[in-house]
Amino acid sequence: MQINIIKIGGNVIDYPQKLEEFLFLFSRFPGKKILVHGGGIMATKFGESMGVMPKMVDGRRITDADTLDIVTMVYAGLINKQIVAKLQGLNQNALGLTGADGNSILSEKRPIKTIDYGYVGDILKINTGLIENLLEDNIIPVFSAITHDKKGQLLNTNADSIASELATSLSNNHKVNLYFCFNKPGVLIDEHNENSIIPLINEEIYGELKKERVIHSGMIPKLDNAFAALHKGVNHVWIGKAENLLLAAKGKLSGTIIENHKYDLY
Amino acid sequence: MQINIIKIGGNVIDYPQKLEEFLFLFSRFPGKKILVHGGGIMATKFGESMGVMPKMVDGRRITDADTLDIVTMVYAGLINKQIVAKLQGLNQNALGLTGADGNSILSEKRPIKTIDYGYVGDILKINTGLIENLLEDNIIPVFSAITHDKKGQLLNTNADSIASELATSLSNNHKVNLYFCFNKPGVLIDEHNENSIIPLINEEIYGELKKERVIHSGMIPKLDNAFAALHKGVNHVWIGKAENLLLAAKGKLSGTIIENHKYDLY
Repeated sequence: MQINIIKIGGNVIDYPQKLEEFLFLFSRFPGKKILVHGGGIMATKFGESMGVMPKMVDGRRITDADTLDIVTMVYAGLINKQIVAKLQGLNQNALGLTGADGNSILSEKRPIKTIDYGYVGDILKINTGLIENLLEDNIIPVFSAITHDKKGQLLNTNADSIASELATSLSNNHKVNLYFCFNKPGVLIDEHNENSIIPLINEEIYGELKKERVIHSGMIPKLDNAFAALHKGVNHVWIGKAENLLLAAKGKLSGTIIENHKYDLY
Repeated sequence: MQINIIKIGGNVIDYPQKLEEFLFLFSRFPGKKILVHGGGIMATKFGESMGVMPKMVDGRRITDADTLDIVTMVYAGLINKQIVAKLQGLNQNALGLTGADGNSILSEKRPIKTIDYGYVGDILKINTGLIENLLEDNIIPVFSAITHDKKGQLLNTNADSIASELATSLSNNHKVNLYFCFNKPGVLIDEHNENSIIPLINEEIYGELKKERVIHSGMIPKLDNAFAALHKGVNHVWIGKAENLLLAAKGKLSGTIIENHKYDLY
């Protein structure tokens, strides 16, 4: 089957009105689909209201036991279930999951090299069987960014990584498209001009754009991640604004499509 | 198939050590099974640490919007996912659900008569298809006590009611046993003597025990609920201590069994 995996983060989740609008668009997105959501600033806010402050070590955010409890409550509890209930209200048969549920995403606690990130999980294996069964029954899996180690421990996990790993694992037997909803309308030539979207990037173009420093800093891991997914069989990766998701679904230019086919931009 | 539905509440969940022990026993419970958990005092504690105090109207606890957020976080998030992860660690393929997930339990907001209970749901319908599919795939559904109205609203729902309604709905096509883990070892003749367990109660005996005021106050709704389930086709209902669950599974006397067969107690 063809499977569309859509990832949203804080720039959608943190704003109730935007989340509502996104869920409406998502409900209109045709075909088999999976939603992956990060957490945004809500976990930090709830944590602070309970006296749990973000923990930083050498400038990196770490997940201690209290923080893990908070993200589990906010991501897997409040946000995930509100999204599921709202999708049900839109006649979308959503079912919320963490990686622990049905052992759908197995991780290991990130090994300590220089920094101990705490209860952070690096994904080892996706249980595609469960996900395929759900999709075949027309159920829409909605993943929060929590996984587990199969030894009883929940682990905080990067939502982009969950989306990518789901996409690559499912692409063994299916045609998978990956959609990253982003705070910009795509990859931009001029980061201050939202009309300067680069519509299509392949590896050749990516190399040139990096050399010319058009693509730099935060966009590089995002695109490296996208190309890694393509190399593992994902059909295409889209980066754009949540509000343009339906245009993307219809194949209209509405963000940046990343694919491995040769394409002559100039 | 034969399905065992086990319900635990605060007297297990509020004590990490007891929960751990219970989950080990549950993992040894043979056959197809479903776990239903209430919330205990954790939601209240977390709520208070965030400045959300329990709301009471005319002495009855109500679920306002803030309280609903808290119970969704604590029941459907923290407790549910910790239980699922721990069961996975015991090689039990658990999958956590609210009634919103897969539209598994549809409720309506309790109609306002004299008291507005707020976001409290009374169950209308169980989607047995999803639950049967999961059980057939050897997945163990783990329900938290949150449901939804299919219009986008989550609802706080009594965990005993969820267990009973699951049992009666599934008993249309299956042999269903219902196990209520309780803070006493069963229904007692003398409430101060834990050795005075009544091993078996049928409707006739229940009538007599009520007349003699051996069974009174809080036990009455519990037993009424049990008999209602039996009338709707549930095979038997067990009430006892969590630590005796495995004895119950083996058919040994270990609590009170409630059934509709004639049984001569005296």
